[in-house]
Amino acid sequence: MPVLVMKFGGTSVATLDRIRRVAKRVGVEVAKGYDVIVIVSAMSGETNKLVGFVNETSPLFDAREYDAVVSSGENVTAGLMALTLQEMDVPARSWQGWQVPVRTTSAHSAARIEEIPTDNINAKFAEGMRVAVVAGFQGLSHEGRITTLGRGGSDTTAVAFAAAFGAERCDIYTDVDGVYTTDPRVSPKARKLDKIAFEEMLELASLGAKVLQTRSVELAMRYNVKLRVLSSFGEQSDDAGTLVCDEEEIMENCPVSGIAFSRDEAKMTLVSVADRPGIAAAIFGPLSEAGVNVDMIIQNIAEEGRTDMTFSCPTDQVMRAEKALSEAKTRGEINFNELIADKDTAKISAVGIGMRSQSGVAAKMFKTLSNEGINIKVIATSEIKISVLIDRKYMELAVQALHDAFELEKA
Amino acid sequence: MPVLVMKFGGTSVATLDRIRRVAKRVGVEVAKGYDVIVIVSAMSGETNKLVGFVNETSPLFDAREYDAVVSSGENVTAGLMALTLQEMDVPARSWQGWQVPVRTTSAHSAARIEEIPTDNINAKFAEGMRVAVVAGFQGLSHEGRITTLGRGGSDTTAVAFAAAFGAERCDIYTDVDGVYTTDPRVSPKARKLDKIAFEEMLELASLGAKVLQTRSVELAMRYNVKLRVLSSFGEQSDDAGTLVCDEEEIMENCPVSGIAFSRDEAKMTLVSVADRPGIAAAIFGPLSEAGVNVDMIIQNIAEEGRTDMTFSCPTDQVMRAEKALSEAKTRGEINFNELIADKDTAKISAVGIGMRSQSGVAAKMFKTLSNEGINIKVIATSEIKISVLIDRKYMELAVQALHDAFELEKA
Repeated sequence: MPVLVMKFGGTSVATLDRIRRVAKRVGVEVAKGYDVIVIVSAMSGETNKLVGFVNETSPLFDAREYDAVVSSGENVTAGLMALTLQEMDVPARSWQGWQVPVRTTSAHSAARIEEIPTDNINAKFAEGMRVAVVAGFQGLSHEGRITTLGRGGSDTTAVAFAAAFGAERCDIYTDVDGVYTTDPRVSPKARKLDKIAFEEMLELASLGAKVLQTRSVELAMRYNVKLRVLSSFGEQSDDAGTLVCDEEEIMENCPVSGIAFSRDEAKMTLVSVADRPGIAAAIFGPLSEAGVNVDMIIQNIAEEGRTDMTFSCPTDQVMRAEKALSEAKTRGEINFNELIADKDTAKISAVGIGMRSQSGVAAKMFKTLSNEGINIKVIATSEIKISVLIDRKYMELAVQALHDAFELEKA
Repeated sequence: MPVLVMKFGGTSVATLDRIRRVAKRVGVEVAKGYDVIVIVSAMSGETNKLVGFVNETSPLFDAREYDAVVSSGENVTAGLMALTLQEMDVPARSWQGWQVPVRTTSAHSAARIEEIPTDNINAKFAEGMRVAVVAGFQGLSHEGRITTLGRGGSDTTAVAFAAAFGAERCDIYTDVDGVYTTDPRVSPKARKLDKIAFEEMLELASLGAKVLQTRSVELAMRYNVKLRVLSSFGEQSDDAGTLVCDEEEIMENCPVSGIAFSRDEAKMTLVSVADRPGIAAAIFGPLSEAGVNVDMIIQNIAEEGRTDMTFSCPTDQVMRAEKALSEAKTRGEINFNELIADKDTAKISAVGIGMRSQSGVAAKMFKTLSNEGINIKVIATSEIKISVLIDRKYMELAVQALHDAFELEKA
């Protein structure tokens, strides 16, 4: 029988009633003839509670014990989901990560899946079991210890199972009904996309549209797993939600598919840096070691062997960045006159695979912002994305204006 | 290094503060030179919450899924305890049941331990780890599924580890500071016993002194594991609490070590039963099938081929017993004139291995009750125990009078 993977996030299994509701959805797919692999998260709030326990017990915790503790929430949901399905006369059983086993690296709390053996679960499907409920987010290291995959890791579990079992599709049930052209809370004209290409989804996911864990999209792209994002609470139909798929499956590409934004980006400028080979490494090495997530980097051409270096990072990492850079200066590794931190900026990005073949997208974006009187502080581009830093107070205005300019409200 | 097993119940690990308190106790034993195996229960309330989830989801649950769900509470405590010890610079790690693995039968929710391999944990002790924290109450079936050992099962886990590792002693930390001559809430003269024999503890445990799971005492007796019951909250010293041990280690045996009681015992009498071979089986077979826990049984000699049959059972099983017996009568399997249920009785028992060699204990017990004007309704005896059923309203009086008569307040 064809296999379908269905993943339910924490809000979808937050109560026993909600577990019953989503179990009914599973029942519908079983009735259609699918063997279903259900991936569950912990009931919402549970993982946060456990993480709180660990942090309070040991601020610099042993990640192996962290994983042993925080993985328990998914185990509870998996058992309860199997029981709920059994109550509906659907043959089901639960698997914890180590029972499959989901083999991972030993990078505790951020492990990567290496292998998912299928024989164990397939043998049960052959015996007539119709649903394998698997605890998401967790695996087993080579040392026989429990690992976890990082926040949002259940998405990655789901895609990895879909790839391993050759599933027809991987449905990610969540509390939103799909991927939107932008955040509907910012632009009321935001429209749900029926389809989006993996590459676009990757850019959107890493830009702050927190629908899917970035790694799950990478994995889906690599193994060409059809990924669908849809709501646990809306209507159930085969064309609900948004399908994330290969770009070949999308008939016509608009130049821009969506406008993403990130509210808390700071712009940092090192003024009058001595320009010499290796200076970028001397600046960004210490930042990386200090755990600063540098996003955009711009080097201005300057005079007399000195240059200005600008980069962006999350606002809450500004202090860490300042400390790392002033220490590097003290050690004599870099030399600059001044470090200016502008914390009142936001990042706006236009994303679309159509950009590759259609010109004028950047020009249209800049003109639109200019018409609204919005000053662009930094520009960075990739093949399918144009990002700008602007004053945070103009963020909503910029998103709405760009959404209008690229006519994203139209299908 | 000698091995010590320390078991902490749910109230002893109810909060992170309490986990820190008991971790300090573990640290003291490590400093003395012990390699310590710590067995932990779930934080109090957790297991009840999970059992509630399962019952609400599926009243006639699949016990395999029940076990998968309810075992998660112990895993959380085990990880947190290991982290707490690490914070105190004590090398520690956690083990879940399947990681040891604690091999059990497949009788889910009431599994029995079959084997505990020691190589895995001993290898870590050899590498310098000083504390193995093991999640109690759980194990692994031959089918690779998680099992649980029944309520109070962590006591049994602790004793089984002590037996497998040849531990010097198994310390059961709980919320009482030892085993008493009787319940201090009933007799203020109750005295904590320094030592008690396995056999006595077994009688007391099954008679309602709910300090230890009965099965753990049986196991300790079979493998001659020195078992100590002591409080997590009191002073820590080598002679705290009560040592449960082989009777040879107890120098002088009093005829009576303790007075146990059970408040909710009903006396059931089948009046004028046709007396024939097999009649007892015909009565107690259906009761057993109905799940009635029959305790004492007395058959009175009667006349003309008819007899009265009396037995005791917990008060809340009276209706079930009445139903089972009237159905057996309807089916023609037994014949009686009347079934009298006396629900206002309590059971009082004097327990002591000294009884074996000293006579007059029963006579003294009966005389004491008689002096107080208490009527004895049923008597049953074993080698080291005399039990009587009396009116419940005299229960406290009887316990206090017997405690005085056998001079249990004196060491």
